[in-house]
This record gives sequence, structure tokens and C-alpha cells, in this order.
Amino acid sequence: MVVREKILDVVVSCFKRHGAKGLDTPAFELKEILTEKYGEDSGLIYDLKDQGGELLSLRYDLTVPFARYLAMNKVKKMKRYHVGKVWRRESPTIVQGRYREFYQCDFDIAGQFDPMIPDAECLKIMCEILSGLHLGDFLIKVSDRRILDGIFAVCGVPESKFHAICSSVDKLDKISWKDVRHEMVVKKGLAPEVADRIGDYVQCHGGISLVEQMFQDPRLSQNKQALEGLGDLKLLFEYLTLFGVAEKVSFDLSLARGLDYYTGVIYEAVLLQTPVHAEEEPLNMGSVAAGGRYDGLVGMFDPRGHKVPCVGLSIGVERIFSIVEQRIKTFGEKIRTTETQVFVATPQKNFLQERLKLIAELWDAGIKAELMYKNNPKLLPQLHYCENMGIPLVVIIGEQELKEGVIKLRSVASREEVAIKRENLVAEIQKRLSES
Amino acid sequence: MVVREKILDVVVSCFKRHGAKGLDTPAFELKEILTEKYGEDSGLIYDLKDQGGELLSLRYDLTVPFARYLAMNKVKKMKRYHVGKVWRRESPTIVQGRYREFYQCDFDIAGQFDPMIPDAECLKIMCEILSGLHLGDFLIKVSDRRILDGIFAVCGVPESKFHAICSSVDKLDKISWKDVRHEMVVKKGLAPEVADRIGDYVQCHGGISLVEQMFQDPRLSQNKQALEGLGDLKLLFEYLTLFGVAEKVSFDLSLARGLDYYTGVIYEAVLLQTPVHAEEEPLNMGSVAAGGRYDGLVGMFDPRGHKVPCVGLSIGVERIFSIVEQRIKTFGEKIRTTETQVFVATPQKNFLQERLKLIAELWDAGIKAELMYKNNPKLLPQLHYCENMGIPLVVIIGEQELKEGVIKLRSVASREEVAIKRENLVAEIQKRLSES
Repeated sequence: MVVREKILDVVVSCFKRHGAKGLDTPAFELKEILTEKYGEDSGLIYDLKDQGGELLSLRYDLTVPFARYLAMNKVKKMKRYHVGKVWRRESPTIVQGRYREFYQCDFDIAGQFDPMIPDAECLKIMCEILSGLHLGDFLIKVSDRRILDGIFAVCGVPESKFHAICSSVDKLDKISWKDVRHEMVVKKGLAPEVADRIGDYVQCHGGISLVEQMFQDPRLSQNKQALEGLGDLKLLFEYLTLFGVAEKVSFDLSLARGLDYYTGVIYEAVLLQTPVHAEEEPLNMGSVAAGGRYDGLVGMFDPRGHKVPCVGLSIGVERIFSIVEQRIKTFGEKIRTTETQVFVATPQKNFLQERLKLIAELWDAGIKAELMYKNNPKLLPQLHYCENMGIPLVVIIGEQELKEGVIKLRSVASREEVAIKRENLVAEIQKRLSES
Repeated sequence: MVVREKILDVVVSCFKRHGAKGLDTPAFELKEILTEKYGEDSGLIYDLKDQGGELLSLRYDLTVPFARYLAMNKVKKMKRYHVGKVWRRESPTIVQGRYREFYQCDFDIAGQFDPMIPDAECLKIMCEILSGLHLGDFLIKVSDRRILDGIFAVCGVPESKFHAICSSVDKLDKISWKDVRHEMVVKKGLAPEVADRIGDYVQCHGGISLVEQMFQDPRLSQNKQALEGLGDLKLLFEYLTLFGVAEKVSFDLSLARGLDYYTGVIYEAVLLQTPVHAEEEPLNMGSVAAGGRYDGLVGMFDPRGHKVPCVGLSIGVERIFSIVEQRIKTFGEKIRTTETQVFVATPQKNFLQERLKLIAELWDAGIKAELMYKNNPKLLPQLHYCENMGIPLVVIIGEQELKEGVIKLRSVASREEVAIKRENLVAEIQKRLSES
């Protein structure tokens, strides 16, 4: 939880830095809203039991609810972030960072704007967050749905097979081209020469120069859709250069992205596999952030089909949680689960009343404080508790102190103790805490 | 959302100040876990559709999942907070602050401790939060389940009717004693003289002196359960006095609390109805925080029935959101929905590249910044946007500035503009922001 809180804080701070407002939508949507938005994964949606009233399902992601919200409220322009849980009926395999309930952190820009400016900002945000989380080196693969469709068209894939072939291409980050080609030809009935032509394209990746090269490609340059996609990518790279992040981005023709609703530029960030520290086990965590442009989704929810172009990104925080937790485990780091700053202790019997008065003073001064819920605790367990929990300061009150109007202030780390006048205690504690 | 964030921040800060760690449990539980925990309200639980696998329901509160968690993980001691959503099948009537999906903010202390110390801390926390939120005056009603049962016993209520009569008493904060008595006698078949005896008790409320008075009560003092409850309340008031909050707490014999799982002290905070400002409409918001001791709940989930005593509280943040939003509306206060500090503008055409370079510099320095997603925006709409959104600073770049290596920095409020050397811009912005 503490690790999660810190990671979410980096993510949300970045979203706010880019001017987004927070938006929260309900956990469930009308079942029909979620139907036919998620391709092959639709079976993973949790439905609610029919207890009278509308048929409801738990949200599968935060994008479709956002689009539904825009359409329902006729919002034409909005920059919002949303950190919330989504639910998928998967068997949980924690090692891959996939759960049945998990957080998604989304940032989206809705509205009709000049091309590629919001899209470039989304990629900049991904870079800022992944750098800010210190996860090691990363790369953002970028492509465009229209380029992939163009490739299929000029290679001679029948349009009825676009979808199936696209999902084969999508596997290229997990299996080799040989295996993908085999699937295309044997399972999906593609002519071998068509598959080979596709292979020539989808094995390419590079920077802005690859975009230029594809513009010159004798076949691809004949396809209108592909040209539009390439034109946008060229502009995108220009803006990414101005943002200082172009070297983190690679034009990767194998990038497909499974979801149905993307219409233009798509992107996916992967951590580079070289572990930062030699003793660390390399983890194949797949993508840690992804997104793209979906100009048609809002229109699907608008009774008159009015479109609102959107582009957005989702940070895969659950995978990031796994990676960071794994790293903490590997290095045996100790993470505090509470933020308690001061423990109120006594070495003597019958001091509960004094401890209660004292701790109320600390709480009222905004100091994070705990005591033992015992009438007459022994001193040693009280000090051990502070060491175990990483509480930095102990205030000790006993007969001697009460008589002299002082409190003993003990540093848990150095075990040093000093007597402090009761009326100066809060100020002294605040001074010590601000110094540490 | 912004208002909510601020309120949740006050609540969570207080929970952390009292040494609680954050704990998150899943949104759904096994259906059987939630069965028979919520009395008459069980019908409000959302069940998931049977899609294979376990039968699941959405959580109805955060207390039962916490108890289930403790039992499952054999945790004997824990102080945790949880801010999360719960779901209830109610028709939403927003004016009363009741929704089908809403946030709960819970704090609970589990473990075997000396009596009433954690209970007193829970009441102290309620006081800190309600004071910290500046909601006006409030009162915490406190009683004990055992006292109410004792009253029923000594007044001659048959044990089979305890439950029904308890839920009648629970209505005393909404309807008069006359109406409650009528319900008891006519609807629930209680003898009129028994009802009158109950009436003598449940119309009493007061401080520690009422506890003493009840100790002397000829009938109630014969009841063992009631005496236990009164003994605990006496101790509780002693600790509340040490915490400096006793005058906010009233022993109220009409307090019943609907939930089945309470076993000891119970409490409920209500805002006092006098509106803070004369022009404000008084809102009857019912209780804004409540809780109590539930020593038997964890044992219900443990296969061998091992008990873990618990005491906790829940802050009614949705009602508090409503009250604060209502107040903002009444006073016409303007709330910013974003935190953007600087807007990057230009008065000239063909300055997109310069704006993009400039804004990336700001973002990289951690400054919250926005620009218009247009190649060639006009200056006036850019400045209007800042005024509407409450953005305090504008940086303006044009030909003149580019030539001279400066940037114009404009204060939106005063409309003053100064030219600042490009290399000093970030430092100057940070200085201005830290001063405001």
C-alpha cells in the first residue's frame, strides 16, 4: 500500500502538471455500453446479477466509461485523468502483474484540435512518468492503425482477414516472426507470399528516418490510409523532438494493440530488459504503459453519432507495483507501513492518564503519535515496538519527569535521551522532525 | 472532485496521525460472507451474475471485508484505515447524500487491549476530523448495545421482540417519542406500560452524570449486561476528558444503530442544526460519522471461531461532500478544477515550435503548465482561458521576445507584464509561485 501510494503520487502529479482535472465515473456501466468494445476479451467482463432494474456490468477499463460520459453530457472538450479500479475475469497470476481487480491510471484529451499536438503530449507524459518512477531504461513503440491496415492492403491480405492477421502481428513481441508466419499461413490460411510481404514490413523499426523511408516505399506510398498515418507520425516525431523525448520513441511496424476502438496513432512503452543491477533477476513485464487515438468511440454513444476525437494513455501501474515490490524484496529494503513520528511511553505503572493527556496534545499539534493500549505496559516492549516500526522519536513520562515538569525525548536510532520542559515539547519535536 | 480530494485529505491525514496503515480489500466478496451481517438492509447488496466460479457480491461496507481479512490472514492486531467505494441498491436521492455507489472512510483498531483506550481514540478521531473540516458545531451521541438490551430486559420486553423494538427506538432521531410509542404498541404489539417504561429511559441524554445516575437506577442496576455497559461508558468518559473532547460527547439512551454486528459501545456524530450563516438553508443531513465495537464479527469468519475484538468508525464523507458543495453553491465560491500554474501563449503565427519547446522546459522543471492545441491561436482566447480557469501566470513568446532572448511573464490578476531573460524564467516562475 505504501509503495502503491508513492507510485500513484508520481503518476497523478504528472497528470496534474499537464493540466488535467480529476474525473470519477461509477464502477458499473450498463451492460450494453461495454458490449463489442474489447474484441476477443469481451468474455472477461463481470456482469451483475439481474436483481431488477438495468442490466449492469463492472467496468473493464476507464476509456469506454470516459467516452460514454462525454457523449451523455455532450462534453466536446476535456482533459481529464482518472485513477480507479477495473475488473476482469482472469485467473490471477500475480507474477505477471495481472489481477482480477486492478488499478488503472488514465489520462485523456478529448476535443477537436490541430493534429498531433495532444498526441505528442501523451507521449511526453509517458516519458515523464516512466523517468520519474526510476524503473530503468524504457522505449516507447509507436505506430498508427492506418499504417498497419495499409500494409495489409498493399500486401494482398483480404479485408475479411485484417482482424485475424492483426492479432497475429500483435504477438511479435512474444514469439518470433517464424512462428507468427506459421500461424498466419497454417492457422489463418494466408498465402505464404502474402505473409512474406507482411514480414518485410512488420520486422522494421527505427526513428524518424524509417518514417521517411516508408514514404518512399513503392507499394505503401500507393495507399492513402498509410500515407495519412505516415504524415501524422512525421509531425509527431517533429513535436517529440521539440519536447526532447524523440530518442525514447521508436516507430515499430509490428505494433498492433488489441483493442477495437483505436483509429490512429498507437503506442506502447516497454521496459528494456537489461536489469539495472546485476544481482536482479530480469523480469519480462511486457508493456508498462500504452494508449492511442480513438476518434470514433464517443460517437458510438451519442444518439446522433456526433464524434469527439480523443487521444489518451493508460499507465500499467499494477505491473509497475510488481516490479518495484520485486526490487524491494531483492534488496531487502524495509518499507514503513505507518508514518508515526512519536511514540508516547512510560516506564512506570499508573501513568495511563498522563500518557493520554500527552498524546492528545501531540495529535492536536498535528504530530503523528501512538501509544500502547495498555494500562501498565513495560518499557522494553514499548521501545522494541518503535524499533520494529521505524518510529524515530519516543517521549517518556514517569514520576521523576512529572515532578520536574519535564518529558524525556529519546531518539530511537541514537538512543540518546534529553529532558525537555513540558511546555517546549511540541516545538522541540516539530524542530527535530523538520530537520530529519 | 476537487472538494472531495480536500475532504478525503483531512480524513486520511487524521487516520495517519493516529498510526493507522492503509489497507485495501477487493470490491467483491464471496456472497456468503456478506449474508446476515446487515439486518434489514441485506436486500441492498449487489450480487454478481453467476458466470462460473464463485458467487460474488459487491461489498456493502468496509467493516465486514476487514473482519474477513483479519480472520483469513489470522491477524490478531491491526490498526488500519481504508478509503474505498461501497455499493448499495438504493434509488439515489442526492439531496440526502445517499448514492448507489459511494465512498466510505473507515478506521478500525483490532486486537485484545485494555478496555476503552482504543474506543476513546476512535471518538477523539471523529472530533479531530469534524473540527478539521469546519462543518460547524457537532455532537457525538454515545451509548452501548448492552445498556439498550438491559433497558429492554428490565422494562419487560420479551426477548423475541428486542430486535423489532430496537429498530423502533432507532427512529427517535427522526420522529417523536409519541409516534415511536405508537409503533411499538400498535404495530409491534408491546404492552403500553412496557412502552412507557422504555420511554422513561430512551428520552434521557446527558454527560458523565447521566452514567452515574443510571448506575443508581433501581431497575437498570439489577441488570448485569447494563452494568457492564455503564462501567465501560464511565471509563470512556474519563479518557475523553483527558483527550479534551468530553464536552462534545453525549450519553444518549435512544442511540440504537441498525447494524447487527455491534456488541458494545456505539456512537454517532450529528451536525448541530443551527446553520453557521443566517442566509444558509438548514440541511438535515442525519449522522456524518458513526461506529462502535464489534467483538464477534471476526470470529464468524474464523473456522475455529477465534475472536478478535474490534472497534472502529466510519466517516460519512458523501454527506459531508453534499454539505460542503451546498455551502460552496450558496456562497457562489469558485473552485478551480485544475491546478495549472502557467499558460504558454503567443500573440503571433508560426510559434507552435517555440511554445512546445518552452512548455517542455516548464514541465521538466515540475511546473504545471498548459497551452492551446492550435497551430496559430489568437492571443485573446488564450488570455480568456487563463481568467476562466484561474491560471495565475502566462508566459508569452513572440518575435520580439525571441529576438531579444526574453519571455514576457504576465500576472493574470494584475495584468502586469515583465520581460524576463529566457534562462531565468523557470527560477522566476518558481519564486512567484512560492510567494503566492
